[in-house]
This record gives sequence, structure tokens and C-alpha cells, in this order.
Amino acid sequence: LRALPDGAVGIIAGGGDLPLEVARAAAAAGRAVFIIALRGFASRQVRLFPHIFADMLDPAGIIACLRAHDVRLVALGGTVNRPGPLAVASVFSAFRNRDEIARIMQGGDDSVLRGVVRMLEDEGMTVVGAHEVAPALLAGAGDLGAIAPDAKAMNDIALGAALLASIARFDVGQACVVAGGRVLGVEGPEGTDALLERVALLVKRIVKLDGDRPVLVKAPKTGQDQRIDMPAIGPRTIAKALAAGCAGLALAANGVIVIDRAETIVEADRAGLFVTGFST
Amino acid sequence: LRALPDGAVGIIAGGGDLPLEVARAAAAAGRAVFIIALRGFASRQVRLFPHIFADMLDPAGIIACLRAHDVRLVALGGTVNRPGPLAVASVFSAFRNRDEIARIMQGGDDSVLRGVVRMLEDEGMTVVGAHEVAPALLAGAGDLGAIAPDAKAMNDIALGAALLASIARFDVGQACVVAGGRVLGVEGPEGTDALLERVALLVKRIVKLDGDRPVLVKAPKTGQDQRIDMPAIGPRTIAKALAAGCAGLALAANGVIVIDRAETIVEADRAGLFVTGFST
Repeated sequence: LRALPDGAVGIIAGGGDLPLEVARAAAAAGRAVFIIALRGFASRQVRLFPHIFADMLDPAGIIACLRAHDVRLVALGGTVNRPGPLAVASVFSAFRNRDEIARIMQGGDDSVLRGVVRMLEDEGMTVVGAHEVAPALLAGAGDLGAIAPDAKAMNDIALGAALLASIARFDVGQACVVAGGRVLGVEGPEGTDALLERVALLVKRIVKLDGDRPVLVKAPKTGQDQRIDMPAIGPRTIAKALAAGCAGLALAANGVIVIDRAETIVEADRAGLFVTGFST
Repeated sequence: LRALPDGAVGIIAGGGDLPLEVARAAAAAGRAVFIIALRGFASRQVRLFPHIFADMLDPAGIIACLRAHDVRLVALGGTVNRPGPLAVASVFSAFRNRDEIARIMQGGDDSVLRGVVRMLEDEGMTVVGAHEVAPALLAGAGDLGAIAPDAKAMNDIALGAALLASIARFDVGQACVVAGGRVLGVEGPEGTDALLERVALLVKRIVKLDGDRPVLVKAPKTGQDQRIDMPAIGPRTIAKALAAGCAGLALAANGVIVIDRAETIVEADRAGLFVTGFST
């Protein structure tokens, strides 16, 4: 991990629990926290921390606010929907030339977020991944809970990890599901929860598993900017994996955030699922 | 294409229209046709050809029947559900040793079908792909209908083809959907129709396409035994692609069967979709 500037971390907060987890973990690590809560996305729980609400399409206002609070370190976290093309163009038009806007808009969601990161950096901010200010959020290597994968699951983990590595350059999913050496699904833009729902239907209706239990394998995409799109699991992932008949979850060590770690592990142990970090 | 034995072709017919297409095309090519209709799977339309009904778990009976009709050339076509492990074991136990049965059963659906092919070959049959007795079923290179892909679609076809090539060794899907350089889905065991249904929901609810239209890209898996699992499209694929907002379908030239070709092309033209064969 690189050395980070001193002072408060500004957390630009989209939806979900992740921004609050980051805020708690960063605060626990002794860093002051200031939340820029994106209106329409961020949880109202942000009020537990110093915060302002801001519009995601007002980057100038966000930057002015970060400056006013002397924040030079910024983390992005939580979910946002991609704004439409006109909205994106209007955001960037104050800062970028026409060719660069076209490039940013042609490149998919990651590209828009990469544009946001570059804009913050051009304004002198240091943009970091949530895990850099809150490394305790990351799954490490080895078993997180009480249950360990068996030899069959280890084979499926190896197969899934190899599959994810081979598609990583296509900017497609961060997860797949494997059962008994057979790939049951590859995550697309629908996300991990929907992938697990699909697998639950597949094993009920189409695929006979002959006793094999599926394993969810999750890893960051190669070359992915982990400041803007870090894979994450949480208690809901455990519930979905249980409903899909999974044996457990395998997470690339130091590449996946565990949201609400204590509850996630309690739920996994109760459901009889392993949660393990694998090294690639 | 290799030289095939003279005489009738026996078509072991699972569900769907493909076995009938094969029978029609083989008959049109001047070859006598004899259909072994798998009970519970095969269409009742098989009665248009010389046929018997047989149980998929009675390979000895099927082989005896092929012999009685002096059939030495066999094609497999149509859909079957994988029988349960006990049923598979009982089928193979008369012909195979315990280790080989275990290997066959551990390997997924293709493995079971590969076992069937080997069993037929050991009995002196020549097992061929449907396209070998009916090459007119294959999509060739270039546009099948009146509509051609534009430059954007060509880029998506190239991306999808590269993605499929990179996952081919994992025995996962034979298709993916790409829109504006973004992968919207990779086919799993759910099949192409379900993939297109998923994309239809994605583009309605989750993914903003900014005017990009998805392209379905379909190709055989590398090392796939094309005698048992040839990718196919048909009129229903066109309807699903239309519902998903697709611009068109790209098929690996000479690697994908077009079921009901005339109707498929009429429907594609009417829907404004291209159907094109690409060379890899």
C-alpha cells in the first residue's frame, strides 16, 4: 500500500452499506472522515458522520466542498446508476475537451468513473480505494469462518479462478459459479446476486448436479481500477448463495471487500457455507 | 469433410426440430434416412420418415435396431435431458468398466454424450455430426439475409468472438451478447434463449446503452465434439433477439446450424436484424 496524505478522508458515497463500512473502518484506523453523500443514492445513515449531500452531476460543487474542508484524500464507494449520455457530457464539458468526452462516454461505466477519478486528481486530490483507507474490509487468504472447502470445492475454485483470469481483460463479470468442474454461470452487468438467483433456477430446472454443490468464485478483473470498482460480498450474498445450494464462496485474497464482516461470517457459519480467500 | 459410408443414415432424435431438419436435408442430399426417436423427447413429426421409437437408456436395443436396418452411419440431434447418475451407470455398465463409468459421469453432459458416441463407434458405427450429412444446415460466411452489420456491430462481433475464443476451453457457453464494446452476458447452461431474455431485462432495467444495440455472437467451443453439441439458431432465436433490442446475430461460419433457414431469414429481415457468418 502506498503512503497516503495525512488528514481527513472524503468519502464520495453512493448507495448501499459500503460507504458507511469504509467510514467506520477509516475512523477506527484513526482517520477523520467527511462524507459527500450523493443525493438519491447514499443511505441516510451517513448522518452518523460529518457529511453533506451533493449532486453527482455537480463535480465542481463536490470539489469546492472537499477544498473547503481541506480534504485531499478521497475514496469512492457504493453504487450509482450510470447517468445518461447528455448528463455525462454536461458534467465533463466544463473540464474536458470534446474528444476526451467522447472517449469517456464510449467506454462503459468504468470509463465514466475513471473520468471522475482523473477529474479529482487533476484538482489535486489523491483518490484511493476504499480498502486503502480501510484495509480491514478485505478478505485475506484462508478461511474466514468455521467451515473449510473440501477437495472437490478446491478443484472448482481453481477452475473458476482460471476462468475469471481468462475473461478478465473483457471487462465482464467479477464472479462465476462452478459445480463439479462445470461452469454454471458467468457474471455480467446484472451482478453477483442476480448470478446466484440464476444458478438457483438452473439447479432446480435444468442442470442435474449429482450431488455436486456450486461454488461462487469472485475476483477483481485484471487491470481493474480498484479505486472505483472493488468486488464486494456481504450477508445478502450468503443468503443468495445458500438459496442456490452453494457449498461456499471463494474470494481472491486481498481483492474482495467483505461488507458487514461479522454478520457475514455468522450467517455463513449458520448456513454451513465456507468463505475462503484464495491466492492467485 | 471426411468421406462417409454409403447407405442410410440413422438419426438418433432428441427433442426439437433439428432432427427433422437433418432428416429432410439428408434426404434431399440423396441419402436414405432412418430415425431412432428417443421416447419422451422426439417430436411426433418423425413419423414423416421411417422410424422407430426407442428408450435412450436402452443403447443395446438401439444398436440392435441400427444393425437390423443395416445402418452404419449415425447422427445425433435434438435435445435430451441428462439422465440421473444411476440411470447413466446402468446404461454404461454393460459396456464399460467401473473406472470409465466414473470418468464419464464426472465430466458433465458432454461427457455422457461422448460416452454414447464411443459406444456406438465400438459397435462399428460411424458417428457424424448433423452438418456432415446435411451441410446445407450450416451458416456460411457473409450475410444470410438482406441486412448487413454496420461498423459498430462489426466491432462488437470481433469482441464477442475474441471473448468466446478465450473461454472456449472452459466448456461454458457457446454465445455471448455485446453492445457498444460492452459484454452484456455470457451463455451458461441456460442456453441462448435464456441469455437473450436476461439481456432484454438488463437493457430495460440496469444497463443504459446510449443507442448501442446488442449483438448476439455464437460460436462452437474449442475442442467441442461437433457430432454431439453443434450450436444452432432458428426463428425463435430471432424473436428473442428482437425482444432484447438486438441489431443482429453473428455466427461462426460453418460452426452454427440454422434451423428452419427460410423462416429464420424471413423473420430476421422482417425484424430488421442482420444474420451474418463471421470467419475466425
